[in-house]
Amino acid sequence: MQFTAELRFDDGVLEREFTLGEIPGILWTPGSASASAPAPLILIGHPGGMRRMYPRLAARARHAAAEGYAGATIELPGSGDRPRSAVAEEARADLRRALQAGEPVADEIVDRLVLPLVEQAVPEWRATLDALQSLPEIGGPVGYSGGVIAIGVRLAVVEPRISAALLFAGSFVPRAMFEEARQVTIPLQVLLQWDDEGNDRQMALDLFDAFGSKEKTLHANMGGHTGVPHFEGDEASRFFARHLK
Amino acid sequence: MQFTAELRFDDGVLEREFTLGEIPGILWTPGSASASAPAPLILIGHPGGMRRMYPRLAARARHAAAEGYAGATIELPGSGDRPRSAVAEEARADLRRALQAGEPVADEIVDRLVLPLVEQAVPEWRATLDALQSLPEIGGPVGYSGGVIAIGVRLAVVEPRISAALLFAGSFVPRAMFEEARQVTIPLQVLLQWDDEGNDRQMALDLFDAFGSKEKTLHANMGGHTGVPHFEGDEASRFFARHLK
Repeated sequence: MQFTAELRFDDGVLEREFTLGEIPGILWTPGSASASAPAPLILIGHPGGMRRMYPRLAARARHAAAEGYAGATIELPGSGDRPRSAVAEEARADLRRALQAGEPVADEIVDRLVLPLVEQAVPEWRATLDALQSLPEIGGPVGYSGGVIAIGVRLAVVEPRISAALLFAGSFVPRAMFEEARQVTIPLQVLLQWDDEGNDRQMALDLFDAFGSKEKTLHANMGGHTGVPHFEGDEASRFFARHLK
Repeated sequence: MQFTAELRFDDGVLEREFTLGEIPGILWTPGSASASAPAPLILIGHPGGMRRMYPRLAARARHAAAEGYAGATIELPGSGDRPRSAVAEEARADLRRALQAGEPVADEIVDRLVLPLVEQAVPEWRATLDALQSLPEIGGPVGYSGGVIAIGVRLAVVEPRISAALLFAGSFVPRAMFEEARQVTIPLQVLLQWDDEGNDRQMALDLFDAFGSKEKTLHANMGGHTGVPHFEGDEASRFFARHLK
């Protein structure tokens, strides 16, 4: 892991860009006041396109840093400056066509789009976690927050270092992964936008039902994909405070 | 409204029992530190049996009082020391039989049990609100919290003084009232226990969908009717803080 640029915000938060092999990422650590002890880490997911998502990612990370967490994100395979996948691009176009036509989204489109992404992204997030945990400023439990929900599901199953996950039911999950959802046992908070144009409400409710976790909470709010209410930021902080501290 | 007994807790909260005609009730007002200005009021619902429910009601009221709210509750028609209704008792027995047998609950049972209760209880809560608002220690916006959800729905429609409602999807709602739900426009937070043995999950989700409010949030948690997680008490406070302050 190589740090390539750094920036200190007025609130003391240190933002550092890094690369892990070919993968670009960003790490935010709390300001000096709270940085005496190693900070628990939240992995900050996104739908792909880290630069495009930067303002929202930085806002989430600085919100978390104010509560004493480090935050980190990496670019997804096939997004941003990373090489495109022809299979994924075609599947994404098929998905967009189905949604625009108001048609049900065929399972095989979701499979083509999401399964290879999960297969590639999850080991990358785990390698990032290895690298981050070797830093003296990172320590303690790890949370995962947001992004492509199928990646969050797989990480919650295979990565024992993740203690709690906040999942955003804002993208399709391959049917084959519902079995995996039953194997999730860590505490979950699941966000659902009731009229999300990029998801299927019943599928999201079925997925919530499938999770094996004893402690899981669904927060459903009105509006479309980008309409998550501002107060859910604080709700996320409180969820992680219950489970990472 | 006549006050019949009073008790001052260590935290300064004043609890007063009252009667409004034949109806017994309890009023909690914040301690002297926060009592300089009139306190916004939260009407505290329950399933009937105010004495039996007292420990939980007092805990909710004192939690709210710590945040600066007055709280009040009244006994429901046919519960506690109030005269029983033969129709309601029979309907309740029919409901219990259906639930114990694992059968679907017929709409007509729900109608017999809930519709007369709503018809009688809602004017009583409104008369209580009249009386409470004439007290100098009560002022500002009014919230409604918990209890029989059909009563909360009707109150949210007909009582313009209620600015926000926290509803507990823990009891059946007559089908005829789904149309009424569409007329609700105030901010709502709806609590759902995912495996509530006294409710139907899909009915609760349909009801949440039906509410006309632009701002409505569903909090679904694992477990049965009495398993609402402790942290939802704080979530309730924050909901009312957003809308009653």
